Amino acid sequence: MAHSVADIAQAIGAEAAGDLTLTVTHASEPATAGPQALALAMDPKYAPGLAKGQAQVAMLWPGADWQGMGLRAAIFAPRGRLAMAGLSRMLDPGPQIAPGVHPMTVIDPSAQIGAGAAIGPFVTIGAGAVIGARARIAGHVSVAEGARIGNDALICQGARIGARVRIGDRFICQPGAVIGADGFSFVTPEKSGVEEIRETLGKRDEIHQQSWTRIHSLGAVTIGDDVEIGANCTIDRGTIRDTTIGNGTKLDNQVHVGHNVQIGNDSLICGQVGIAGSSRIGNRVVLAGQCGVNDNIFVGDDVIAGGGTKIFTNAPAGRVLLGYPAVKMEAHVEIQKALRRLPRLAARVGEIEKIVGASSSGD
Amino acid sequence: MAHSVADIAQAIGAEAAGDLTLTVTHASEPATAGPQALALAMDPKYAPGLAKGQAQVAMLWPGADWQGMGLRAAIFAPRGRLAMAGLSRMLDPGPQIAPGVHPMTVIDPSAQIGAGAAIGPFVTIGAGAVIGARARIAGHVSVAEGARIGNDALICQGARIGARVRIGDRFICQPGAVIGADGFSFVTPEKSGVEEIRETLGKRDEIHQQSWTRIHSLGAVTIGDDVEIGANCTIDRGTIRDTTIGNGTKLDNQVHVGHNVQIGNDSLICGQVGIAGSSRIGNRVVLAGQCGVNDNIFVGDDVIAGGGTKIFTNAPAGRVLLGYPAVKMEAHVEIQKALRRLPRLAARVGEIEKIVGASSSGD
Amino acid sequence: MAHSVADIAQAIGAEAAGDLTLTVTHASEPATAGPQALALAMDPKYAPGLAKGQAQVAMLWPGADWQGMGLRAAIFAPRGRLAMAGLSRMLDPGPQIAPGVHPMTVIDPSAQIGAGAAIGPFVTIGAGAVIGARARIAGHVSVAEGARIGNDALICQGARIGARVRIGDRFICQPGAVIGADGFSFVTPEKSGVEEIRETLGKRDEIHQQSWTRIHSLGAVTIGDDVEIGANCTIDRGTIRDTTIGNGTKLDNQVHVGHNVQIGNDSLICGQVGIAGSSRIGNRVVLAGQCGVNDNIFVGDDVIAGGGTKIFTNAPAGRVLLGYPAVKMEAHVEIQKALRRLPRLAARVGEIEKIVGASSSGD
Repeated sequence: MAHSVADIAQAIGAEAAGDLTLTVTHASEPATAGPQALALAMDPKYAPGLAKGQAQVAMLWPGADWQGMGLRAAIFAPRGRLAMAGLSRMLDPGPQIAPGVHPMTVIDPSAQIGAGAAIGPFVTIGAGAVIGARARIAGHVSVAEGARIGNDALICQGARIGARVRIGDRFICQPGAVIGADGFSFVTPEKSGVEEIRETLGKRDEIHQQSWTRIHSLGAVTIGDDVEIGANCTIDRGTIRDTTIGNGTKLDNQVHVGHNVQIGNDSLICGQVGIAGSSRIGNRVVLAGQCGVNDNIFVGDDVIAGGGTKIFTNAPAGRVLLGYPAVKMEAHVEIQKALRRLPRLAARVGEIEKIVGASSSGD
Repeated sequence: MAHSVADIAQAIGAEAAGDLTLTVTHASEPATAGPQALALAMDPKYAPGLAKGQAQVAMLWPGADWQGMGLRAAIFAPRGRLAMAGLSRMLDPGPQIAPGVHPMTVIDPSAQIGAGAAIGPFVTIGAGAVIGARARIAGHVSVAEGARIGNDALICQGARIGARVRIGDRFICQPGAVIGADGFSFVTPEKSGVEEIRETLGKRDEIHQQSWTRIHSLGAVTIGDDVEIGANCTIDRGTIRDTTIGNGTKLDNQVHVGHNVQIGNDSLICGQVGIAGSSRIGNRVVLAGQCGVNDNIFVGDDVIAGGGTKIFTNAPAGRVLLGYPAVKMEAHVEIQKALRRLPRLAARVGEIEKIVGASSSGD
Repeated sequence: MAHSVADIAQAIGAEAAGDLTLTVTHASEPATAGPQALALAMDPKYAPGLAKGQAQVAMLWPGADWQGMGLRAAIFAPRGRLAMAGLSRMLDPGPQIAPGVHPMTVIDPSAQIGAGAAIGPFVTIGAGAVIGARARIAGHVSVAEGARIGNDALICQGARIGARVRIGDRFICQPGAVIGADGFSFVTPEKSGVEEIRETLGKRDEIHQQSWTRIHSLGAVTIGDDVEIGANCTIDRGTIRDTTIGNGTKLDNQVHVGHNVQIGNDSLICGQVGIAGSSRIGNRVVLAGQCGVNDNIFVGDDVIAGGGTKIFTNAPAGRVLLGYPAVKMEAHVEIQKALRRLPRLAARVGEIEKIVGASSSGD
């Protein structure tokens, strides 16, 4: 589908110059752009690529000399990635799901499907489920009994929405995500080794034979508006109350959210993060890839944790964390510097000991 | 469904007091409990919540003054979480899967389905597969040719049971788990860089071009009785013999078990743990979230490893581990303390060098 | 199916001795081998097992005294695992997928299916998709609109191939893998806390309320020839250009590949590795289990990273890495040694301070 320069500029709230009636069909990197492409060069470092490609229209940084670059029109993006958001939304064809309900589906007669829904093949929708207006549900999705999903949802291939899960409007769910699996909660008849270790930080008197009795999950999952869940994520239901995810929070792929966890609003949980049972994550928290959060702790509002950070204890609001175990990012940087010098430090201490005549016994 | 106080107390083997004929329909946290709820307050710290809610019946700690709390009946739980196990089992409605075999399934005529099975829509069951009595198999599950599953299985949406996999009784499989994918096993015609590095711990003489030849997995997976596998787990088949998981072992979500791995009985493998090929995990081992186990090592009985522990070498029975690389938990705590003081320690050594006139050259 | 010793030896290019007309039906470990098994004992340490089993034929190391072991025939494997590759390929029955297209599928009339394809039940193939010759596609797979897959593909249960994804020949995809989910890319109207932290390495002046605007993924995924993708992997599409994976590269289970990532040829990406957006991985790179790669960096050709290594900055070609954060493996080993001695080192410094009269204040 072709879009005029004028339409694009208006849609993303940007200024444009040149022949605003020119049309483009897709976006491209500058060097590989064909004549129908909108070349993306929102930073001067991408400008040389324009000469290699054939674009006649580009999105540029404010003040760029578009005519000097041989372009016939330009759109100016003061904040490049923000402009990309608007542009990419406009150009995204989205998944093809035919309007209406595919005949090869199994939808319980008591389920309610909102107006304008598109439901693909091999979808199952359980008894009493409620799906909002304009939902797009791709093939192989299952929505179990009693689940409620708001308006304008996009649920991709093979996602699993469990029984009694509640989800707000504008939900996006990538393929293979599992929302509402049972929590991982087991108990031993006698105090288990794990309980003992937690109390003693590593000591144990004797080891007992023990096996695990299951605690079933009676709660579900409640998810707010404008939430996106990544591919193959797993979000467990709560034991008594629901596991919750607040409005505007986004989860990347393969994130694991344990039972009873509460995540606030507008948080960003990156790929392969794991959050153990009953922990609370605040608002606007950013957990970079492969972070881990211990069970039964809280991570305050606006905490930012770098890649692979393992958070074992409560993190106050606004803290910036890194490391295993997590420490303030500044402390981590300082410790790492000292660590790289540690072998040399040990040698220096040995030299001093020789000078002062101290013994280095035991080492 | 309503349950009387007497029935609940009997089912979980607890004592009760007050009007034992009162009924409840569900469990609730104390503060949000309605009049039909069983409020859960097995620790005195939850008692204040009872006043905020409307519960007439609560599960309390032994000796609690239930009448003083305004309750009409109470059940006493000497070990709260153990009582929760029994109670939650009683109240869990379980997934709705209609009895019998859904017509929209593809089940090979040579497959054997046990008496009382409930099999949902879009399920596939391959040639020669054997499913035990009373199995509940939710929609979109695939059970491949020659797989054998014991009695009383619950297999949730979209789980994949591979060819010739053998599973015991009372199996629970959460959605999206893959049991019996091919192992990740490749070989190069000449010695590979990885083999060289393992021998030299980091040195390499020269680098060769090489590509990978696949070793197919001829084994399957054997799983004992009373095993639970979490959502989106992946368990690879063995190369010659089977990958094995013992009786009573529980896997949380997104656990990865490599080819040829042997896991013993009653172990607890938490979320996002990865166990590389051919390693052996003992009985009653607990690996907390995001632990990693190197290939071809063993982790002895009763080992407990804290979150994110990376186990590179054999771990003797009973060891309590933490860290990357794993060390005894006590050693880890001591090292971390010393590490936080390391920048200061380096400064102190600098000061001493000034006093004694030593050189800190090279740093 | 029975194979003669002569056929096996010829197929894997090995020498054989004894009665070459003997046949075997499967491979086995020596001790558990029955009379129809080919016992695998390619290292002298496995020889004692032969006496316990009933094998008449074994695969042995070159020069082994097969007659002294009581065998009737032997195959000699100079490089045992390489022989296993050929042997296992020969003995692997592969997944049972009936030839032709199962009637219970939803295949768009505009899709092209190559000659000799076998497509299982509940598969969906979208408009304009092109599937090469001899493809084997197991049940529950979805191939979205415009995807192109080369010849001789094996795509296992429930895998998801997204719209416009392009894949070369001899592709193997394990169950539950998701190729072509949307990238995880969000932007805030004002500079976000994350952007600020990246600039200051941990300092932040003030915290702002902010919510996330989505950048849609307009690119797809391009995958070369001879690639294998593990179970429940997730590979995101690119923002403008495609995410790419080169020829001969193999991904283990639960690997996460972010948007715009480029992986070269013949690389080996082990279980649960995560590669964040826009990073570039070279040729013949080996990332062991649970490694993490930061976004927007490059990892040069022939880099080898040990288990759990977190790579935050560019890694030059040929580097051998370990640790969090990644350092050269040799440096990591040295640092770990020093670290275990650190508590003792601190005590030694304290003793020196007593001797020289320095103050240890502040500690």
